[in-house]
This record gives sequence, C-alpha cells and structure tokens, in this order.
Amino acid sequence: MPAPHVARRERLAAQLRGRGLAAALVTDLVNVRYLTGFTGSNGAVRVAEDGSAELATDGRYRDQAAEEAPDVAVTIGRDLLGVLAGGARGAARVGIETHVLTVDDHVHAREVLAGVELVSLDRAVEVLRVVKDEDELDALRRACDISVQALDELLAGPLLGRTEREIARDLEWTMYAMGAEAIGFETIVAAGANAAIPHHDPTDRPVGRDELLKIDFGARVDGYHADCTRTVVVGRADAWQTEVYEVVRTAQQAGVDAVTAGAQTHDVDAVVRRSLEDAGWLEAFTTGLGHGVGLQIHEDPFLSRPAPARLERRTALTVEPGIYVPGRGGVRIEDTLVVTDGPAELLTVATKDLLELA
Amino acid sequence: MPAPHVARRERLAAQLRGRGLAAALVTDLVNVRYLTGFTGSNGAVRVAEDGSAELATDGRYRDQAAEEAPDVAVTIGRDLLGVLAGGARGAARVGIETHVLTVDDHVHAREVLAGVELVSLDRAVEVLRVVKDEDELDALRRACDISVQALDELLAGPLLGRTEREIARDLEWTMYAMGAEAIGFETIVAAGANAAIPHHDPTDRPVGRDELLKIDFGARVDGYHADCTRTVVVGRADAWQTEVYEVVRTAQQAGVDAVTAGAQTHDVDAVVRRSLEDAGWLEAFTTGLGHGVGLQIHEDPFLSRPAPARLERRTALTVEPGIYVPGRGGVRIEDTLVVTDGPAELLTVATKDLLELA
Repeated sequence: MPAPHVARRERLAAQLRGRGLAAALVTDLVNVRYLTGFTGSNGAVRVAEDGSAELATDGRYRDQAAEEAPDVAVTIGRDLLGVLAGGARGAARVGIETHVLTVDDHVHAREVLAGVELVSLDRAVEVLRVVKDEDELDALRRACDISVQALDELLAGPLLGRTEREIARDLEWTMYAMGAEAIGFETIVAAGANAAIPHHDPTDRPVGRDELLKIDFGARVDGYHADCTRTVVVGRADAWQTEVYEVVRTAQQAGVDAVTAGAQTHDVDAVVRRSLEDAGWLEAFTTGLGHGVGLQIHEDPFLSRPAPARLERRTALTVEPGIYVPGRGGVRIEDTLVVTDGPAELLTVATKDLLELA
Repeated sequence: MPAPHVARRERLAAQLRGRGLAAALVTDLVNVRYLTGFTGSNGAVRVAEDGSAELATDGRYRDQAAEEAPDVAVTIGRDLLGVLAGGARGAARVGIETHVLTVDDHVHAREVLAGVELVSLDRAVEVLRVVKDEDELDALRRACDISVQALDELLAGPLLGRTEREIARDLEWTMYAMGAEAIGFETIVAAGANAAIPHHDPTDRPVGRDELLKIDFGARVDGYHADCTRTVVVGRADAWQTEVYEVVRTAQQAGVDAVTAGAQTHDVDAVVRRSLEDAGWLEAFTTGLGHGVGLQIHEDPFLSRPAPARLERRTALTVEPGIYVPGRGGVRIEDTLVVTDGPAELLTVATKDLLELA
C-alpha cells in the first residue's frame, strides 16, 4: 500500500516552495494526523520545502508515533516547538498556523526561532484536505456504509414509546458493533416538537404515535466521519408532515443534483433555497446547507458561507436542508457526497421516501 | 437553587479589580461554560470588573444560550470578539486568554479594541476552577457513583474470551443506562501484555485465562468527569501479578493518604515514588501520578509537574500510579478524590483488593 502521507507532505512542500517558505510548523492536531498518520493528543510536525519532516511528541507516545508515522523522524520532548525549531534555525521564513497557534505559543516560537520571519500558512493544510485522496475516500465510504446499515437495523425494530436517548444509544451501539472506531459526533434523536430544534440533544422523552422522528448520526472509521440525517414518521403521517417532508426532500435532491466539479458553493446553496422558497418554506430553513467532512465532522468547504468557493473533484461534503417549525416539529434530510465531474457520488445510500414505521 | 455562575463570575471580577483590569475576554469554551453555564460549541464571554457579563454566540444557539445562561446578557453575532469589544471600548486594560486565543484572533482583538491594552489573564479562570463549588462536587460525585456501579455490573458478568472492545462498549453502555450524559474519555481496556501500555485503545484481542485486565474509564455528568482505573485478574493471579498488584496498591494508598489540604503536589508525588522505589519497581512507573479533574478530564493541578502547587480544599484530583512492563503486562489503580482538611474524600468507591474473576 503506498503511503498517502508522503504524497500529502509533498503537496504541502510544493506550496512552501511556491511561497518562499523554508518550512511549515504544523501544530493543529488534525493537520498533524493528516500529514503523518500520528493520532496522539499531543504533537506537532515540521515539514520542510523538500518534503522531509520531523514529528515531535511527548514520551507517552514514543511507540505509537514510531508505529503510526514510520516515514518521518520522531523526536520526543516536552517543548514541541523548541524541538521542531532545531531544524528551522537559520531559515529566512517559516510558516505557522496562525489560526490555531496560541498567543503564548507564538511568543515562544519567536523566542526559539529568533531571527526567523514567522508568517501565516493561511490554512494551507486545510486547503489541501478539501480534496481527498483514495485512502480518505475509502475510509469515508466505510464510515457511511456502517452508518446506513446501523440505521437500517434501528428502523427495522420498534420505535414507538422508546426514548430519544434509548434510540440514540441503540444506534451508536450498532455502529460500534459494525466496526465504527467511534461515534463521529453527538447523535441527534429528536421526536415530535423536538424535531424543530436543529441540534437537539436526546432526552428521556418517548416517541409518541404519529410523530416525526429526526435522526442525525454518523460513524467514524480510521478518523473519517460519516454524516447522515433521516426523518421518519412513527405511525401515520398527516398532511402537514407529508407536505413538509416532500418539500425538504425535493430541495435536498435539487442540492444533490447541483453538486458537481466546478459548481460554486453559493450556487448549490441558491438552488436549494429557491426550491424551498418556491414551496413557501424558505423562512423555516434556519441553518447552513452543508459542510465538508473528513478528519473533522465540519471542515471546508461550507456551502452557505459568504466567501464563494469552487467545488473540486474528490471533495466530500454534506447537503442537509431542513424545515424547523418551533413547537411543532421539523424535517431534515442529509447525505454525505463526493464531488465528481458528473453527478455526485452518494455515500449515505438509504431511502429518502417518507417512511411510516411502527 | 442559588446560581453558582454568579458567584464564579464575582470571584473572577475580584481578581480583575486586584489586577487593574476593566474586564476579561474569556474565549476558552470550558471557561465560558464554567462562568455562564452555556454549553454550545461557539461562544465567548466578557466579564467586567463589577461582575456583569455579556455572552456572545451565533444564531444556532440563541435559545440554548438564553436557557442555559439566564443571568447574563446574550448577544448573537458571527464576530464574537467584535460583539464583546462593544462593552470594553475605552477601557485602559482588558485581560485575554493568551494560552488559548489564536494569533489570528489576537490580531482581530487588537483591531476591534484599538487603544486598549490587552494583557494575559494568566489562566485566571483555570486557577478558579481548581477549587470546586458544591454544584461541581455534586456532579463529580454522581459521575463517580455511576462509574463504579457500572464497573460492578461489568465485573459481575463473564470476562474470559470477550474482546477488549466488547468489554469497553459494554461498560460504556451501562454508564449511559445509569444516567451518564456522555463517556468522559476514550475507555481503556487492556488485557495481558496490552496492560503494559499506559493508554491503550481497546482492540479485538480477547481476554485470555489468568491475564491481567486493566480498565480505565469514567462517566460524564453535567459536564463533570469521573476517572477511575481498576486492574483485575481473569482467572488466578500468579506470583508476579500478585506482587506487582500489591506494590501498586500500597503506593496508591500512600498517595491517597498524602492528599490533604496544604500538602504540596510534589510531596504527594514523592511519597508514591518512594513507595515504588522501596519495592524496587520505580522504573516501571512511567507516567505522571495524577491530575485535577472537573469540566475537563485533565486539568490543574498536575501532581508530577515540576512547578510546585499547594493542594487546596475542594480540589478534585486523581491518584493513579502504575507499573508497566513492556511485553508482559501492567497494573494501574486510580481513584478520583476531593481534598479536605483531613483525609481525602474518596469518590470512586470500589474495592482495591486483587479480584480474581471468571
């Protein structure tokens, strides 16, 4: 198996060369993992313009770092910036992650790299992470497969009378049993009026008859997150529930259909909002449309942010419109997709028909 | 019920007055929660020298902020520092959390507070958090009760042949069922030689006969973390396992006995290390002795850090010596304690006799 981390570091190194930076000091732990494979809770990496790298961590992670990041030099120490500074002294300019580096650590970096100009990397690693490599897509597919299979199993069982919390724990348990290494984020299970709350923590409220039940969940596999929402009716759907559901479903499909390489994020957003507006429900859509997903559950690109961005091939993202009516209920439908030159690849393959369940 | 957050903000305000600071801009989310009760994933609070406060968050959390932090002004916006700057303009000096504020946000803070001197708060809120109030101790007690009851239930069932991962999930499931709002940290279940790894992720390795089984786990309740480790033998303990266990047990008890108000952290550390040294096992103790516990699983004070610190009444902390022998196995025993003027209050009440289980 080729080592994806070498290729990732080489892509970063190419950027460094283009910007006249001798090296990058990467201190964001997710970025450290992306560039090296190291998953410990304390670490930093220096990547040089020639692609070589040194990983610094503390003594707890000596063996783990050697195992997870076999193709970089690993140095153990308490002062990670001090360790990494050793290979950057005398450089003219070094990039730092000003969006994560703390003020105190910045002061320290200036001390240990006196005479070196420290400039912002401008989220260079985050930008690289937008376009996934094959290893990443593979992990995302497995995370999504586990998630939708666990949902299938949940929906095959009884729901009426179970509490939101029980349903959440049951779904999480099934994801673990199917091979999830972790639950990707706090599972949302929202019944009845609670479904109107976009991000609702499960409570001890039981699911009542003929209520909407919104489930937003996902497994994590090899560090990569699935993100999926389905809304069902426990019992029989009334006219209002059916209307709202079909409006969201139509808008979500329009969004999915708009996702293709070269499209602008704000165009995808506009397509969905127009669909909701045409149906008279735009005001009830109170959240962003979607977000990139990968080593973080929320990462670039964000579909509803003002700054426009062009969708690139191999970007993984969610499309998740919803209608939220305080005191009454709500519907959200969300898929995780991968951008291609044609129609998006759908990773969360689960029916979007309105299910009426027992 | 009195509102603990008001008293906490008043304690911070007293520090601000003592240091000549007009206000503190608190951006660490755990500290925001501590000072206001707000638990959302995006927020910041300005506490003024008179104890008044303004909480800033984004539109997703409008209702939640009002509900969780009813006694502070809540302002919704995208630019949290910009929002909070409004009430601090014209001040001479304002405190910021330089240990968490990013370089980019520092630049932004200087823009929106031009003319105001921004000085480090020197972890003032973390220092306050070391001494728990009654609400905090109550949550810690409940978290620890749930944890040890879940352990009891786990150990009453069969262990032999189950995988580390199955045991971890089972224990977590029981904690949830008993009322945990979350699992406090990634559960460690380590069997046989894996018990030599201080922080081992559970694998699909089954527990074999006559093996050590190390379990480090804890529930989270109202944001507060329990932290407990027990090591048992599945089958019959041999002479080596028994020796190592009793050495750790004796050292751990010496540490617990040394925890009292006025003791120095390094003295507690020294007592435990001396006990291990007397038994000839000090070299196999490769981690820190313990840490404060509260809204974070690891927080001040840290028992083995070079900087000395005096233990204060109402500080919650762990004592967790271990012996780790690579390739062979290991033992750790850990309790969560609360410092009092007399003997420490033990929150994780579970036997420390060497259990031989089926």
